Amino acid sequence: MTTPNFSRAFLAQLDDLLIWRRDVRHFEPRALKAGLLDILLDRASLAPSVGNSQPWRFVRVVSPERRAAITAHVEAENARAAALYHDETRAAYDALKLHGLGQAPEHIAVFCDTTPQEGQGLGRQTMPETLAYSTVLAIHTLWLAARARGVGLGWVSILEPAAIAAMLDVPPHWTFIGYLCLGYPLAAHDVPELERSGWQARIDPTTTRFTR
Amino acid sequence: MTTPNFSRAFLAQLDDLLIWRRDVRHFEPRALKAGLLDILLDRASLAPSVGNSQPWRFVRVVSPERRAAITAHVEAENARAAALYHDETRAAYDALKLHGLGQAPEHIAVFCDTTPQEGQGLGRQTMPETLAYSTVLAIHTLWLAARARGVGLGWVSILEPAAIAAMLDVPPHWTFIGYLCLGYPLAAHDVPELERSGWQARIDPTTTRFTR
Repeated sequence: MTTPNFSRAFLAQLDDLLIWRRDVRHFEPRALKAGLLDILLDRASLAPSVGNSQPWRFVRVVSPERRAAITAHVEAENARAAALYHDETRAAYDALKLHGLGQAPEHIAVFCDTTPQEGQGLGRQTMPETLAYSTVLAIHTLWLAARARGVGLGWVSILEPAAIAAMLDVPPHWTFIGYLCLGYPLAAHDVPELERSGWQARIDPTTTRFTR
Repeated sequence: MTTPNFSRAFLAQLDDLLIWRRDVRHFEPRALKAGLLDILLDRASLAPSVGNSQPWRFVRVVSPERRAAITAHVEAENARAAALYHDETRAAYDALKLHGLGQAPEHIAVFCDTTPQEGQGLGRQTMPETLAYSTVLAIHTLWLAARARGVGLGWVSILEPAAIAAMLDVPPHWTFIGYLCLGYPLAAHDVPELERSGWQARIDPTTTRFTR
């Protein structure tokens, strides 16, 4: 393997990937191509992690009973969240499709091992949250690897982490990070669904930059 | 713009990017090409975020006094962390170069706005930490965009978040996420520095997968 030199053509396609990556909530129900999920999870494991601790734990949820329980839980939490909005905002909220749990062929619950042997504690004495952040880096790697292969990912966060951990019977030292739906998207878009629906547009990115 | 279809050649190069992305601690001192930092931060702002809240706040640290104070703080915290190790492990720890603060031409402190107007609270009622996670997604996007353009990034976490926030005089509702060094790396590697040094190798990625 020689040191790669990334061409202008590659950079343009990488920009396309970043621009067209979406949080997907509308899926075809058909299964992922055989072996593809393992390929995606292999890529996710190339993510950086604090002290090389590799604390991500991927739980593929296949049991119909567990999927149904999780979907019901998300629906209940979503109803509770909806009650915070009123008038037109409530109507706009109700019009949003916030997850594709019912259609997505793959459900992956992602946890973080908070006491990994790997890394021997390096880099996280003052910021133990870097373990959770490392797990988030793996999710994002999975997301991009999936989109590049035509697979959509939707990150569901309208849920109680402890409830999901209990439903999935995971070790007590695992912290829940995110619940992912994966599948072939019904449509591709270069604009976020929340922007298309009028909920929240992209802001001018230069407004997030400061100098000291 | 038409829906992109990513070729096998692109997928192979994307794998190269994931494989050769490194946490860099050895930098050339020369400045980044003019305008490049803005290009990288533009890409970072394409990251997904909960409710499209875009809570990332990038603080470019240019003041020599502030840089010196932050470097001294990291050195002190690193000495404290080193004291946790003994014998051969301590010797191995002491041999690691854990940051390139002295050489890197760019220092970026990344914060998360914990009360953004954007997104109207969507998706984060039960998991407010998804704002921090969104900021981590932006850091990873920056990391990949940088490496694709020959720029290395090193994430420094051996520090007290509150101390850095105080030194940089940021609003109280901003949470510190990570301190980034950017610059041209002295060398490229496809194996993590912590693996090359014998500190921590990659584990078999299939050991992080479970089914329920």
